[in-house]
Amino acid sequence: MLSTAALFRKRLETDTCLIGVGAYDALSARLVQAHGFDALWVSSFCVSAARGFPDAGILTLTELLHTTEQLLEAAEMPAIVDCDNGYGDVAQLSRAIRSLERAGAAAVCIEDSAFPKRSSLYSIPDRMVVPTEQFTAKIRIAKEAQRSTDFAVIARTEALVAGLGMAEALERAARYADAGADLILIHSVTKETFASVVSVAGSASLSKPLAIVPTTAWQYSTDELREAGFKLIIYANQQLRAAAKSMETVMIALRTSGRIDPVACQLASIDEINRLVGYSEFQTLEERYRLLCGLDPNDSGRKTRGAKR
Amino acid sequence: MLSTAALFRKRLETDTCLIGVGAYDALSARLVQAHGFDALWVSSFCVSAARGFPDAGILTLTELLHTTEQLLEAAEMPAIVDCDNGYGDVAQLSRAIRSLERAGAAAVCIEDSAFPKRSSLYSIPDRMVVPTEQFTAKIRIAKEAQRSTDFAVIARTEALVAGLGMAEALERAARYADAGADLILIHSVTKETFASVVSVAGSASLSKPLAIVPTTAWQYSTDELREAGFKLIIYANQQLRAAAKSMETVMIALRTSGRIDPVACQLASIDEINRLVGYSEFQTLEERYRLLCGLDPNDSGRKTRGAKR
Amino acid sequence: MLSTAALFRKRLETDTCLIGVGAYDALSARLVQAHGFDALWVSSFCVSAARGFPDAGILTLTELLHTTEQLLEAAEMPAIVDCDNGYGDVAQLSRAIRSLERAGAAAVCIEDSAFPKRSSLYSIPDRMVVPTEQFTAKIRIAKEAQRSTDFAVIARTEALVAGLGMAEALERAARYADAGADLILIHSVTKETFASVVSVAGSASLSKPLAIVPTTAWQYSTDELREAGFKLIIYANQQLRAAAKSMETVMIALRTSGRIDPVACQLASIDEINRLVGYSEFQTLEERYRLLCGLDPNDSGRKTRGAKR
Amino acid sequence: MLSTAALFRKRLETDTCLIGVGAYDALSARLVQAHGFDALWVSSFCVSAARGFPDAGILTLTELLHTTEQLLEAAEMPAIVDCDNGYGDVAQLSRAIRSLERAGAAAVCIEDSAFPKRSSLYSIPDRMVVPTEQFTAKIRIAKEAQRSTDFAVIARTEALVAGLGMAEALERAARYADAGADLILIHSVTKETFASVVSVAGSASLSKPLAIVPTTAWQYSTDELREAGFKLIIYANQQLRAAAKSMETVMIALRTSGRIDPVACQLASIDEINRLVGYSEFQTLEERYRLLCGLDPNDSGRKTRGAKR
Repeated sequence: MLSTAALFRKRLETDTCLIGVGAYDALSARLVQAHGFDALWVSSFCVSAARGFPDAGILTLTELLHTTEQLLEAAEMPAIVDCDNGYGDVAQLSRAIRSLERAGAAAVCIEDSAFPKRSSLYSIPDRMVVPTEQFTAKIRIAKEAQRSTDFAVIARTEALVAGLGMAEALERAARYADAGADLILIHSVTKETFASVVSVAGSASLSKPLAIVPTTAWQYSTDELREAGFKLIIYANQQLRAAAKSMETVMIALRTSGRIDPVACQLASIDEINRLVGYSEFQTLEERYRLLCGLDPNDSGRKTRGAKR
Repeated sequence: MLSTAALFRKRLETDTCLIGVGAYDALSARLVQAHGFDALWVSSFCVSAARGFPDAGILTLTELLHTTEQLLEAAEMPAIVDCDNGYGDVAQLSRAIRSLERAGAAAVCIEDSAFPKRSSLYSIPDRMVVPTEQFTAKIRIAKEAQRSTDFAVIARTEALVAGLGMAEALERAARYADAGADLILIHSVTKETFASVVSVAGSASLSKPLAIVPTTAWQYSTDELREAGFKLIIYANQQLRAAAKSMETVMIALRTSGRIDPVACQLASIDEINRLVGYSEFQTLEERYRLLCGLDPNDSGRKTRGAKR
Repeated sequence: MLSTAALFRKRLETDTCLIGVGAYDALSARLVQAHGFDALWVSSFCVSAARGFPDAGILTLTELLHTTEQLLEAAEMPAIVDCDNGYGDVAQLSRAIRSLERAGAAAVCIEDSAFPKRSSLYSIPDRMVVPTEQFTAKIRIAKEAQRSTDFAVIARTEALVAGLGMAEALERAARYADAGADLILIHSVTKETFASVVSVAGSASLSKPLAIVPTTAWQYSTDELREAGFKLIIYANQQLRAAAKSMETVMIALRTSGRIDPVACQLASIDEINRLVGYSEFQTLEERYRLLCGLDPNDSGRKTRGAKR
Repeated sequence: MLSTAALFRKRLETDTCLIGVGAYDALSARLVQAHGFDALWVSSFCVSAARGFPDAGILTLTELLHTTEQLLEAAEMPAIVDCDNGYGDVAQLSRAIRSLERAGAAAVCIEDSAFPKRSSLYSIPDRMVVPTEQFTAKIRIAKEAQRSTDFAVIARTEALVAGLGMAEALERAARYADAGADLILIHSVTKETFASVVSVAGSASLSKPLAIVPTTAWQYSTDELREAGFKLIIYANQQLRAAAKSMETVMIALRTSGRIDPVACQLASIDEINRLVGYSEFQTLEERYRLLCGLDPNDSGRKTRGAKR
């Protein structure tokens, strides 16, 4: 059986373009899997938010790791884990790689911002990035830490976010690719810089393929991004944001009307939740057990016994 | 500062009716708090689903405990934890009570079904309930396990779900109240049995107040249930179900159209997520630190240094 | 690279006899590895004790799982996890198998006692065992739950502990072997029953090899047990018991004398602890990083900068 | 009931001198409690080692937090948690304080070394300390993060370890005390600097009491340190070191002789472990339950039913 890391690497080689979608709990992971996407993106922003933290390096590696384990327990597929700038120094980075690989992750993404991390989604004009030499060294350490040759490291540069310009971003991209990164992500948060990344994607002669996270520039379709030359497209946080909005709608309706019916059609049924979490597999298992025990599998065996006092 | 358990007990005594809402992660807990509800309901069904498990006693106490800790870290308010039938025998139950009370829970709910648990939401016609004597003993053990006098134990009978009739349900309710339960929950899953519970709520002369979970019978408004005599109304799983439905909508849209824009209006903005997770408190803290360090608090101090190679 | 499960299975086939030693934290796991033993035994008794619980089914699967992950992070070698009677019903058992296999365990041991578990180390004269058919069904369910063919299931019968006699124990052993268990453990807690197990080990014509846990009968040497025909010898709890005794000695000395020197020779040095936890590997990693950054690897780079106020 | 933080603060005010002892798992915590010491010291060095990590900032806050929870679940007494330099920036520090206080810790210790941390036990000649203004700001942030007024913050200066001399150490101690630290720890790792700290302890006119960690200078007795003027003496790591040494002795004996008997007298008995983990309380609980159920409490109720096939 191919590991999810081997599967991810193989598909990177054979497929035109892969699509990763952000998941932050088992339900969202199951949905990514059920709708045929290629990879889970374990987003620092989303996992932090689901824990009640801003995306500012407050979430610990352990919390990210446990979430990754839960996602993979729910949906066995390639998972790419957003490791920010690597949780400190190289000892922390090496441990992160080893722990996440052991947990079944297929890849990590590390970025060249300085510790502690600030989300690129926050409007901090001048974000700090580390010198190129320091980050290429980190990429090499990350690659040396992994156990299987299949595991992938995505190197993300925050050069554009830090206002350093496209020349610097491309220079860093080339250096990171040469240092051993398996994919390169030139991150951007404005529509303009995003467009400039799209425009260079095809012509950037990097030794490694490009990934992209179109959070703030969703005017591009998946097809357009694939055609522009990206190998991996990551829809990082849409599921969490949909969940938050719909939960708030329900809370408002309940608060203002004292009723659930106004929003009843916006709720998945209990049966739909059960389908998502594999209730029928559980039932099959119980029936199988009864069969193996020599009992009638269709009799639930759960007789009412309580209570004729 | 009043503990959340003390607050919950005080409000049980002074308020006409409290409303608890199911939360399963920090975001949903923040929403319960933000919209002024009175308590978090830590639902076994929801927490299991968010972990990818059917509600069948597969979720461990540790997983429920860690979720409870996360909810309380995000929203400091009374939390009522759904402990199913108590995780096994009395040693497991005592440990559950102590661990959850230590984690800051205000109350637990335990039910008279047999271990391992089957969700009342599943259509198993004849669910097993334990003899009344056994469950009153468990209630006493639970009350003896708690450390503070404020902590509350809600006793839930599955008598109606098990088809034992209202007389048995009321008899159990009375016995559980006398055994020390702080609130009684006569559970029901059909509209008919629910209506019968509503009709007896006012006249049931129990020594303890009644709680209710109107999952399958949301034709009643909060006002109607309060007027019927319930002291605690629990909307157990609507947030999770809203989240699942909206996430699936986004997945379908992305899969079929390759675009996010068709569902963009159904997504909370990044700023809305940041507001929910307290990003501004984080910023205030950073400014406070800079002020304490004798620096200009408005200067982020995060100068670009990378990269003039 | 061979998985630890594959390694364990291969060595079961090729070696005369393997020795497993109980570990309950990373230090004890490192010692098992450092001294060349063949497998970690993740003992329910020890892990419970290290968490402050009696061995009575109070420890949750999650706690056992997290400990297993910690041991394997510290010592990459075959780990056999003591799963008592499987954490409830078959849904719990299947989940336990899948979670532990995913965590990197090579094998589990399940026993035919009834849930919740009582340790065989406690003097409860008549322990409950489940009917043979029920346990063979559980063994089949466990074998169907595992993902790789290498993962092993050890079936342990408590028939002798329950006073059912050797004929019953051997009958169960045969049935469990036929049901697919990879190894059989006929457990015993008195010197007499232990001796009877030793005496039949060579002649018991089972389709699967025998394991043994000589906790209460350590008059036998490893050689004698191997020659008696056992394929796997498990020294389950000696490390924990040594730790507890020596820690108590230190506490008594400190309490009574107010000094550490009386017991100084009973303490590992800081350097010895550092060696056990791989401090030199950490140093090597830091030097490697400095080298990759183009800096002098021997200069720690940790200049004093504080403090010229 | 007094919280452990309130108890610790009260005893700091009323007692001459308190003794804290390092614990890293429930067994070691129980021993600290059983032998009448005043506080648990949750040592970064020990908890890291028990997880297989060198003391170099690799252990995450979550891992330290979960260990703290386990210790307090096992031994309800004041716990002082060694937070190194605070897990990053002030957002991380504030979160650490809040999480640990919520978990029931009575105090934390933070130090003025730079992130990521290096243990003072490692021979790195010039350790980096942060400017005094920065650390006093951190102390204020820590004090503002705590919820109850009882919670204590111990400020530890590494000035002597960094070779900055006693004048700098005392200056920092004074500044940290004025910034709101509840206790001051002037750390030292050589016998000579330790002696100099002892010699100034009585005359240092600080606004807050002094703590000390005599790891490398155990020539002083508890009495001598108390008389020298210390308010809190911390025996940080002796239990772990005793455990490691005795476990290694057992591993060597088993490896070389193939027998347990040579070291049998160095093992706690199963009964001694059971006493430490409260097996009798568990039995009492089971008997109580049987009594409440109307059954004979002395009959274990665990009849052998398996198996007369």
